Amino acid sequence: MNQKNITFNTPHLTGKEVHYIYDAVFNKQLSGNGKYTKLCHKFFQDRYGFKKVLLTSSCTDALEMCALLINTQPGDEVIMPSYTFVSTANAFVLRGAKIIFADSYNHHPNMDADKIESLITSKTKAIVVMHYAGVANDMKKIKDLVQRYNLYLIEDAAQCIDSYYIDEINKKIPLGSIGHLAAFSFHETKNVICGEGGMLVVNDERFEKRAEIIWEKGTNRSAFFRGEVNKYGWVDVGSSFLPSELNAAFLYAQLEHLEQIQQKRLFIWNYYYEHLKELEEKGFIRLPYIPPYATNNAHMFYILCRSLEERAKLIEYLKTQGIQAVFHYLSLHKSEFYKDKHDGRELPNSDMFSDNLVRLPFYFDLTNEDLGYIVDTIKIFFHAK
Amino acid sequence: MNQKNITFNTPHLTGKEVHYIYDAVFNKQLSGNGKYTKLCHKFFQDRYGFKKVLLTSSCTDALEMCALLINTQPGDEVIMPSYTFVSTANAFVLRGAKIIFADSYNHHPNMDADKIESLITSKTKAIVVMHYAGVANDMKKIKDLVQRYNLYLIEDAAQCIDSYYIDEINKKIPLGSIGHLAAFSFHETKNVICGEGGMLVVNDERFEKRAEIIWEKGTNRSAFFRGEVNKYGWVDVGSSFLPSELNAAFLYAQLEHLEQIQQKRLFIWNYYYEHLKELEEKGFIRLPYIPPYATNNAHMFYILCRSLEERAKLIEYLKTQGIQAVFHYLSLHKSEFYKDKHDGRELPNSDMFSDNLVRLPFYFDLTNEDLGYIVDTIKIFFHAK
Repeated sequence: MNQKNITFNTPHLTGKEVHYIYDAVFNKQLSGNGKYTKLCHKFFQDRYGFKKVLLTSSCTDALEMCALLINTQPGDEVIMPSYTFVSTANAFVLRGAKIIFADSYNHHPNMDADKIESLITSKTKAIVVMHYAGVANDMKKIKDLVQRYNLYLIEDAAQCIDSYYIDEINKKIPLGSIGHLAAFSFHETKNVICGEGGMLVVNDERFEKRAEIIWEKGTNRSAFFRGEVNKYGWVDVGSSFLPSELNAAFLYAQLEHLEQIQQKRLFIWNYYYEHLKELEEKGFIRLPYIPPYATNNAHMFYILCRSLEERAKLIEYLKTQGIQAVFHYLSLHKSEFYKDKHDGRELPNSDMFSDNLVRLPFYFDLTNEDLGYIVDTIKIFFHAK
Repeated sequence: MNQKNITFNTPHLTGKEVHYIYDAVFNKQLSGNGKYTKLCHKFFQDRYGFKKVLLTSSCTDALEMCALLINTQPGDEVIMPSYTFVSTANAFVLRGAKIIFADSYNHHPNMDADKIESLITSKTKAIVVMHYAGVANDMKKIKDLVQRYNLYLIEDAAQCIDSYYIDEINKKIPLGSIGHLAAFSFHETKNVICGEGGMLVVNDERFEKRAEIIWEKGTNRSAFFRGEVNKYGWVDVGSSFLPSELNAAFLYAQLEHLEQIQQKRLFIWNYYYEHLKELEEKGFIRLPYIPPYATNNAHMFYILCRSLEERAKLIEYLKTQGIQAVFHYLSLHKSEFYKDKHDGRELPNSDMFSDNLVRLPFYFDLTNEDLGYIVDTIKIFFHAK
C-alpha cells in the first residue's frame, strides 16, 4: 500500500480569509452586497476594466442571470459546446431554449469556431462560448458571427480568471470582457475560490440596470439605496443571486493574493508540461494546446490518452499509487436528458475529449516532491521510465 | 444628538462559527454537500423529524426548487398571500405561473384561510402558505382544501424555525413538515443564520430523488456517490442550489445553540409584549396576535399603527432617538411588476399591514437597557409616558 495521498484538488488559504469573515461580522452585515462584495466588485473593475460586475452564489447563477437578461424564450435557440458543464446548458433550458450543441476543435476542447455558422438559424438568440481551461476561443471569428447575425454573445468564463484573448494588434483583452455578458466561477476547484461562488460581468450597458434588479430578487432595492427611487418594490422577475458576505470576505482575501496564486499555478503547469513532453513526443499522450490568440492562466492541466480504456487504466493505476486524477465532462448532446432533444449530428471531437481527457492534481499547495512523483508515476504507467 | 444607535438587526455569533469554517478548510472541502451540510441535515431530521432536507443558498432557491418539483407550467395558477416577500411569488413566476393573491386576516398578516376556496379554479396547481413571523396559519382548513381539490401544498417557512402548528388533539407539528414541500431561510435577519442561506424540506417521498437531482445541477451525482449508478450525468433540469461548506459550517455552529438563541429571543418578545400592552389597551397600537393553533418562535416583534402617516412619524421619531425600526412587505398585487397581472380584487388587510406594520429591533445581543429604552421611546411618541 502506497503512503502517498495526493488529492485532485485542495482548497488553498492565503491567510486572511477568516480574518475578513470576522470583520464582516463586526460590520454587522453577513447577508449580501456589503463591504466585501463591494471590495470584490472594485477589484475586478480596477484590474480588468470590467464595467459592471455582480458577485453571485455560483457561476450557474450568473449564467441564469444571462439567460434572463437576454429574455430567453421558449423556442429560442442557443449555440454552445457539447463539451461543457451542465449549467452552461441548464441556465438556458430553464428559460425554455433549445440548445444547439457544437463540436470541439480536435486540438482543443473549445467549440470549433468554424463550425458555428452552419448552426445559425432565424431562431438563434445567442452564442455561448465556454473558454475551456481558461484558454480563449477564437473571439475574432465568433464576434464576427455575432455581429453579422445580430446575436447575443455570452462568455461562460467559469475557468477564466486572469486570462486573455490576444487580438490582431497583439493587445491582451481580458476574458469575460468580450461578450455582452460573462459568467465567472469561484468554486473551490478554481484559481481563486470562496467555496461556491460566481460573478456576472455586464459589458453591454443596456443590461446594467436590469442586472441589478434581477440580482436583488426582482426589486429595485439597489436604486433605492442610491436614493434614485423613494421606495423599493417588485419590478421584475429575479432571484436571490447575491452571495453572503461570508463568501465575499473569503473571496476578497484570495483576490489580494491573485499574483502569488497565479505565479505558483503557472509554475505547476509548466512543470507538468516540461516533464511530460517526452511522453507526447513518443506518441503516448497529447498535451494541452494554447493557440496563439490565447494566454494560459494555469487553471488546469490535462493530458489526452489514446482511448477511453487507456484512460480508465491510467486513472486506476494512479489511484493505486495514491494520486487522484479525474476525467471531466461527458458530451451533453449524448446525456440522458438531452439525447432525444439533440438533432442527431455526430460531435466526434466532443466525444473524444469525453473519453480521453484526464486532469492531473492541480492546486497551490502541491510540492515539487508531489509533482516529481506524479510525473514519474505517469511515465512508469506508459513504460517510459 | 442622541448617542444611542440600536440597529434593527445585528448578526449574533454563538462562538464556534469560525472554528468550524477552519475545520471545513482542513477537511479540504469548501464546496457544497460536505461534512457540515450533512451535519445540518442530520440536525433538522433528528430534531423535527423532517424526512429529507437539502440546504440551499437561500430560501428563494428552495422555493424555486419547489416550483420545479411540482412541474409548474405556464398557465398554472398558484395561490399565495399578497403580503409576503417577492421570492414567494417570483419562484413560481419564473416557471410561468399566474399568481392568485389572497388577502390576509385582519388579526394577522397570514393569508385568510377562509378566503382561499373561492380562488381555486381548474388551473390551480398549488397553495403556498407563508407563516408570517413564524406563526402558523390554520393548517387544518388549508390541508382540507388541498386534499379536496387535489392540490400541492407548499410552506414558505422562511421565518419558521422551531415553530409549530397545534392540531385538534393538541399535538405540536413542526412548521415545514405539513406541506408536500417547505422552504426555510437562514438569512442574517432570521433566528439562526449563515448570511444568505435556506433549506428545502421534502415531506412527500415522491419528490425525494428528483429534489437531489435538481439540487445537484440536474445531475445524478448524489446517486453516483452512493454507488447507485456507475457514472453521473445530465438527467434533468436543475441549478446550483447547494451552499458552500463555509455557510453550512457557520450555520451548524448556530444550530448547536438553538435552545439558547430561542430562550433569549422569547425573553425579548415577551418583554416587548408586556411593556407595550398598555399602549394597546389605550388604543394607540395593536400587538401581535398568536392564534390558539400556533406557537411563538420569537422570530420578530411588530406593532400595528393606526395609519401609514402615523407609522412614518413613529419610524422617523425612533430614528431621531437612535432606534432603527422598519416596515415590511408592500402588497405584491399592487407592485409595479404585478398590478397589471392581478385580477383587480381589493385585498384590504394586506394593504393595511403594508401601511401600518412596523418591526422593532430584534436580535440576541439586545440588552435589557436597550429594550427599556425602546419601549420608553415608543411610549413617549404616543404621549403615554
